[in-house]
Amino acid sequence: MRIGVIHGPNLHLLGKREPGVYGTLSLSEINERLKTRARTLGVTVETRQSNSEGEIVSWIGEGESWYDGLIINPAAYTHTSIAIRDALLAVSLPTIEVHLSNIHKREAFRQVSYVAPVVLGTISGLGPYGYELAMLALVHHVQKASP
Amino acid sequence: MRIGVIHGPNLHLLGKREPGVYGTLSLSEINERLKTRARTLGVTVETRQSNSEGEIVSWIGEGESWYDGLIINPAAYTHTSIAIRDALLAVSLPTIEVHLSNIHKREAFRQVSYVAPVVLGTISGLGPYGYELAMLALVHHVQKASP
Amino acid sequence: MRIGVIHGPNLHLLGKREPGVYGTLSLSEINERLKTRARTLGVTVETRQSNSEGEIVSWIGEGESWYDGLIINPAAYTHTSIAIRDALLAVSLPTIEVHLSNIHKREAFRQVSYVAPVVLGTISGLGPYGYELAMLALVHHVQKASP
Amino acid sequence: MRIGVIHGPNLHLLGKREPGVYGTLSLSEINERLKTRARTLGVTVETRQSNSEGEIVSWIGEGESWYDGLIINPAAYTHTSIAIRDALLAVSLPTIEVHLSNIHKREAFRQVSYVAPVVLGTISGLGPYGYELAMLALVHHVQKASP
Amino acid sequence: MRIGVIHGPNLHLLGKREPGVYGTLSLSEINERLKTRARTLGVTVETRQSNSEGEIVSWIGEGESWYDGLIINPAAYTHTSIAIRDALLAVSLPTIEVHLSNIHKREAFRQVSYVAPVVLGTISGLGPYGYELAMLALVHHVQKASP
Amino acid sequence: MRIGVIHGPNLHLLGKREPGVYGTLSLSEINERLKTRARTLGVTVETRQSNSEGEIVSWIGEGESWYDGLIINPAAYTHTSIAIRDALLAVSLPTIEVHLSNIHKREAFRQVSYVAPVVLGTISGLGPYGYELAMLALVHHVQKASP
Amino acid sequence: MRIGVIHGPNLHLLGKREPGVYGTLSLSEINERLKTRARTLGVTVETRQSNSEGEIVSWIGEGESWYDGLIINPAAYTHTSIAIRDALLAVSLPTIEVHLSNIHKREAFRQVSYVAPVVLGTISGLGPYGYELAMLALVHHVQKASP
Amino acid sequence: MRIGVIHGPNLHLLGKREPGVYGTLSLSEINERLKTRARTLGVTVETRQSNSEGEIVSWIGEGESWYDGLIINPAAYTHTSIAIRDALLAVSLPTIEVHLSNIHKREAFRQVSYVAPVVLGTISGLGPYGYELAMLALVHHVQKASP
Amino acid sequence: MRIGVIHGPNLHLLGKREPGVYGTLSLSEINERLKTRARTLGVTVETRQSNSEGEIVSWIGEGESWYDGLIINPAAYTHTSIAIRDALLAVSLPTIEVHLSNIHKREAFRQVSYVAPVVLGTISGLGPYGYELAMLALVHHVQKASP
Amino acid sequence: MRIGVIHGPNLHLLGKREPGVYGTLSLSEINERLKTRARTLGVTVETRQSNSEGEIVSWIGEGESWYDGLIINPAAYTHTSIAIRDALLAVSLPTIEVHLSNIHKREAFRQVSYVAPVVLGTISGLGPYGYELAMLALVHHVQKASP
Amino acid sequence: MRIGVIHGPNLHLLGKREPGVYGTLSLSEINERLKTRARTLGVTVETRQSNSEGEIVSWIGEGESWYDGLIINPAAYTHTSIAIRDALLAVSLPTIEVHLSNIHKREAFRQVSYVAPVVLGTISGLGPYGYELAMLALVHHVQKASP
Amino acid sequence: MRIGVIHGPNLHLLGKREPGVYGTLSLSEINERLKTRARTLGVTVETRQSNSEGEIVSWIGEGESWYDGLIINPAAYTHTSIAIRDALLAVSLPTIEVHLSNIHKREAFRQVSYVAPVVLGTISGLGPYGYELAMLALVHHVQKASP
Repeated sequence: MRIGVIHGPNLHLLGKREPGVYGTLSLSEINERLKTRARTLGVTVETRQSNSEGEIVSWIGEGESWYDGLIINPAAYTHTSIAIRDALLAVSLPTIEVHLSNIHKREAFRQVSYVAPVVLGTISGLGPYGYELAMLALVHHVQKASP
Repeated sequence: MRIGVIHGPNLHLLGKREPGVYGTLSLSEINERLKTRARTLGVTVETRQSNSEGEIVSWIGEGESWYDGLIINPAAYTHTSIAIRDALLAVSLPTIEVHLSNIHKREAFRQVSYVAPVVLGTISGLGPYGYELAMLALVHHVQKASP
Repeated sequence: MRIGVIHGPNLHLLGKREPGVYGTLSLSEINERLKTRARTLGVTVETRQSNSEGEIVSWIGEGESWYDGLIINPAAYTHTSIAIRDALLAVSLPTIEVHLSNIHKREAFRQVSYVAPVVLGTISGLGPYGYELAMLALVHHVQKASP
Repeated sequence: MRIGVIHGPNLHLLGKREPGVYGTLSLSEINERLKTRARTLGVTVETRQSNSEGEIVSWIGEGESWYDGLIINPAAYTHTSIAIRDALLAVSLPTIEVHLSNIHKREAFRQVSYVAPVVLGTISGLGPYGYELAMLALVHHVQKASP
Repeated sequence: MRIGVIHGPNLHLLGKREPGVYGTLSLSEINERLKTRARTLGVTVETRQSNSEGEIVSWIGEGESWYDGLIINPAAYTHTSIAIRDALLAVSLPTIEVHLSNIHKREAFRQVSYVAPVVLGTISGLGPYGYELAMLALVHHVQKASP
Repeated sequence: MRIGVIHGPNLHLLGKREPGVYGTLSLSEINERLKTRARTLGVTVETRQSNSEGEIVSWIGEGESWYDGLIINPAAYTHTSIAIRDALLAVSLPTIEVHLSNIHKREAFRQVSYVAPVVLGTISGLGPYGYELAMLALVHHVQKASP
Repeated sequence: MRIGVIHGPNLHLLGKREPGVYGTLSLSEINERLKTRARTLGVTVETRQSNSEGEIVSWIGEGESWYDGLIINPAAYTHTSIAIRDALLAVSLPTIEVHLSNIHKREAFRQVSYVAPVVLGTISGLGPYGYELAMLALVHHVQKASP
Repeated sequence: MRIGVIHGPNLHLLGKREPGVYGTLSLSEINERLKTRARTLGVTVETRQSNSEGEIVSWIGEGESWYDGLIINPAAYTHTSIAIRDALLAVSLPTIEVHLSNIHKREAFRQVSYVAPVVLGTISGLGPYGYELAMLALVHHVQKASP
Repeated sequence: MRIGVIHGPNLHLLGKREPGVYGTLSLSEINERLKTRARTLGVTVETRQSNSEGEIVSWIGEGESWYDGLIINPAAYTHTSIAIRDALLAVSLPTIEVHLSNIHKREAFRQVSYVAPVVLGTISGLGPYGYELAMLALVHHVQKASP
Repeated sequence: MRIGVIHGPNLHLLGKREPGVYGTLSLSEINERLKTRARTLGVTVETRQSNSEGEIVSWIGEGESWYDGLIINPAAYTHTSIAIRDALLAVSLPTIEVHLSNIHKREAFRQVSYVAPVVLGTISGLGPYGYELAMLALVHHVQKASP
Repeated sequence: MRIGVIHGPNLHLLGKREPGVYGTLSLSEINERLKTRARTLGVTVETRQSNSEGEIVSWIGEGESWYDGLIINPAAYTHTSIAIRDALLAVSLPTIEVHLSNIHKREAFRQVSYVAPVVLGTISGLGPYGYELAMLALVHHVQKASP
Repeated sequence: MRIGVIHGPNLHLLGKREPGVYGTLSLSEINERLKTRARTLGVTVETRQSNSEGEIVSWIGEGESWYDGLIINPAAYTHTSIAIRDALLAVSLPTIEVHLSNIHKREAFRQVSYVAPVVLGTISGLGPYGYELAMLALVHHVQKASP
């Protein structure tokens, strides 16, 4: 089983900036933890980051060839990108959305989500550990679905 | 470590009704799984269900005496109860909100949440397995917070 | 055929208060009329009243064991209770909603109804006689549905 | 006692079209049933149908000369016609509004009603049988009002 | 003259929780002060607290038998309960609404009040002393109204 | 100079109905007064009434052949008819809108006007005398515009 | 009979500015015409202009001592001043509101009027001649009202 | 194959009025072009125009007996007529909506369309040529659908 | 201790106008009562009234030099004046807002308050006695705050 | 004459995904048909696809050098991209917007279009054949415009 | 070249109050800096402050006689005064709007500006230095405009 | 001191397109002027332009390594990009937002700004000269902040 992880805009700055909000772990440390967790679960994981909406759309479009499931943190594009929503709809990959912070505690425009209605489920506010829970949920989902 | 789990209105009907939406597990089966999982984590868990908003408010108000953390699925009260929000604000228990279904795929009035902004984080759309992930997250959070 | 009738909050005060709006019949007189009408139709009827949203939710949840159809006047909870809506959705009882007064002549917040979209039909503005019409409609519906 | 029944736009197509939504009875069959019911109640009934808002306004304006009460299903004009509302306000005929389908289960623009606030009461979602209930309610109302 | 005082949900936690917002007095200390003040005014006072919307509705419904005036702090139910509004409308008790904090300084959903339009007047933002002012105003009002 | 006067739906009932709102003059009396006034001003006037939106649209479309100016009271169609607005835009007749009652004192849906932005000016709330003022204004306008 | 005329903010600039919108007559020429017209009607007229909301409120408050009727063009304050509305409500002077331009053809914020619902009637879009029509209407109204 | 073309209110004035917006072709010239185009495609076409909403509703209701497809330009009724929408829903005729001007460049109230969601497709802003494209599309659609 | 009392626009007309809404006391009688009450409390009070928003802004700006606390009834400016809000924010005087009538029972535009969020607390609907309660609350507040 | 065709995000997945919504033709087959049609019309056509908003903006900006007209299906960017709107405004190329599906039948957020108000016209809901109609319209428009 | 500077309500309190928001400079110090800067640019400057909306309207109305350009900080009136907007429209003085603080970081009601759409440009959030930049821009604008 | 200048989408077309709105200067001429101005101030400036939201996000993320302050004209992305807002929040660079035209005079959707609340200040409507003023303000700000 192969899992793709897509990190959206500004997430490459994690750990160095606003640690009060986003924690002190860098993106590569988060990816490292995910890979460690993946090994214990016997799955492979590939992580990517992009600031470009179009690039994320392209990655999702090609996703079925490479992955059995997707974890996505669309960051700011959560609230503005219908293109990412359409891409997720176009492919039939089971996907889980992750947010590091509890977006319900933030500005009103972060309450609107184009992505949440088209994914399997959402995990928000639980920090980097949320990615690991998403991986558990994805493995659980795929195993339950396959005979 | 002791964890309280509060199930909101209509959840006592789980398994028997609308299995297409809410799954085929009954509430007692879900609670059983949670207790099994709790034993492997070395924590104790207590589960409750109520159709009464006032009773849930009272349970939360007394929660600090009995629990180190809370898992709550407020069901329909998620969208209408400021009293439950105020109760959660009044106590300092780390709390995780769980929804069985992906509420973002449902009616507009289910998009409003009075609870989400005052909890640690939210897990939605991942079925009964979401409760187990919430328990993992709660243990992870308490261990990280304690020296 | 058994029919349950649920009267919502403040309806126990009927007849004594605001007769200009709600008429001069007391709740027990209305219930008496319903029972008389039921006898002529050869059905049994059971009436209940509660000020508690949670209690009404519980009664609906147990309704399938006891009734073949439901008449409900959710009063103020019509406009605020998603829990009652969810309870009605959870059981498969044919249900008719009744309002004594014409709620469309009243405040804007009484125009929102969480119950109307999940019931068979609605009768409003026809006073206590509306309950009797609801009973007729329920009998008509059940007879038409059964072979 | 004479009762007028006004059917609004597109209702002449009943029975032949969209039977899943509006039932399989044709308009003339519904009118026939109403006349049968009227005979048992000792009242006379006259039924009309028009696709023209202006014609319906004219019929209501002349209504007091011919009827003691009115049953109206304004269909699509329910949601757009202030002229029909004004006509009902201009005459002092007791009127009951009927809708075949439960309009609260349909599009948002069907939730707005210009007619509901100016009639005695509303019966919706109970199919053609709703017209018969409306006739019962009208007779009940007029008898109660006359000494 | 007898005055009833109804404290809404979560107010039993006063003094112990969020003293920065709600002050350091416990609910029993506030009640004690009200009773002392009542004695100097020659009136009797009875205080109650409930987390249950239905119970508060029931208390108000029975209020006329026991009280000459009411002081109510509906807390979170201020913003969500049409049932409490209807109960206050159903009885003819002069009532004054009290809020400890200035609700206009708080979240938008606390700006909507179902209770304010049906009471005599409102006192908000003046802490526990607001209850004493409400008692003064109630006595003043009843004396002015009686010949 | 020839002036056309168009009275909209329900205005044929004037005088007989709701005299508290619309005054005690019948439509033919109002028309008589307008003709008297017209003679003193040396203009001819033609009055029409229709309950049909389409008929009013047709009259306006033919208006240029017959009139030098138009007075219109679109009644309920003021608030719902874009077709009448488009008809007025299609012809280049100077037009004055008249309302018998002060529509700003009435329901919110009567505040929206599709006609007001495309006419010369509006006179409202001045009763039947408003038609006479409109005729004065129309004569004043045409004389000022012609060399 | 004495009539007061109150011109609101910026109207002292009439004639010199934006003649395309407001015409080429200066405020003193308009006042002159009003006085000429007043003489032919046998009434006296007094005209005032102020840029200050408070001053206009004061003039209205004293109006009953000096006038039998009021003509007011509140200009920009039409859309923002509840104080002028309250002043008009506080005195019982028959008042007619005049606007030189057709405000319905302008910005959305000019569609809101605090004044229109509390006056006898409104004349808009008919230029300076609108003041003369308002004077006719006021005389007509007072004569009809006095025995 | 027979195609019906329905032109809505005010379109009989085409060519003579506002040529800057709607072009210089008269309605009969447009109809002539459509008939010429129809002959080259081997289909018959019938064109109608009405200012009456009710008449258009009636024509659509009878449409299935006479046509295999419909082209409709509802003009002003596009934005206000739920009755036309319901008529189109009631018949199963493939229908294409045409607008001469680009309605998205015009007033806000022309952005709301009751017709667009129930037709096959929409062509707007392409002038009279839009009718010819609609005819091409209708023929293309029917040929593709038939075996 | 010195207290300033500011009465907003139209309040100089109290007692003479609309006694049904605002009571029969004149402003000077209300001020007299406040002074009597002040003497018994050992504080001095100064009362002012203005119809001018700018003058009220100026008075508040100078308030710290002259007063230890402020009572303000901004009347109509409550709902429109950001300038008064800014003035109250600029000075550090404890302030209590008073409304004679229960503004929550009135028009929607009176529900918006720019002043409430920046004062200590609000007393509304208790008539002239509300000013006296405000004075009690101000004295109570200042004494509690001073050591 | 040269025509540019720009396909927006996710359209490279056409044919393979959601054929129920978007048809079974792949993007290259659609392009092939367009080229065939172009040859019969004697025009040249160039087709491009991009998932990147910025790239589409750049292509439009350079469009005048290469094309005489543009056909654009902005897909998801229709509803979110002001940048594409600005690019179309910056160049003076006649442009026609095409949507494969009838966007008026879909989610509310797809009703907002930033592109429609700045193009010549729109064709929606007619499947891949809509591109061919757009090409016909573009040729028709350019030929009519050139002498 | 002569420049007028108008400071709106509460700005006379600058420097003494809320220095964290508005800085520590007093209004006279700001005016002094502006005069110094004016001398180096060879222009004359006159500064005024008023708490009265009407007075500011009057100053603008007279502005053309005295100034070649205007700098205005309307403070709270920015968001509520249509009268100031109308005054600026009535005179043809080039005007630049200045705000000391970044109003976009503040309450929602400060996002509405009646002034911004009718001035040359806006400078906000740059403190007292913003006035100097406005003077530079005004000189730059006038020099560019004059041959 | 080093200043970065970022020009958003479509700004590379400046000077050649819509000179009536955006002026006749090309982007390279504007950049040249900025560099000339920079030399006189003793600072270095680097200018960049991109049509890609993702690329602008990346530039801002790297900005702290290269610049002491930022000038940004996000053009169309001002109104749609939360990602650019987040990038500005993530870095601690003092930033000034510039708009060539007065965006408050344009469409409603250009009134929403995601960028304005997170920058130091905004300069709009002053043409290319606005960039020079922004540079002055940035130098002024940095010098004031450094000891």
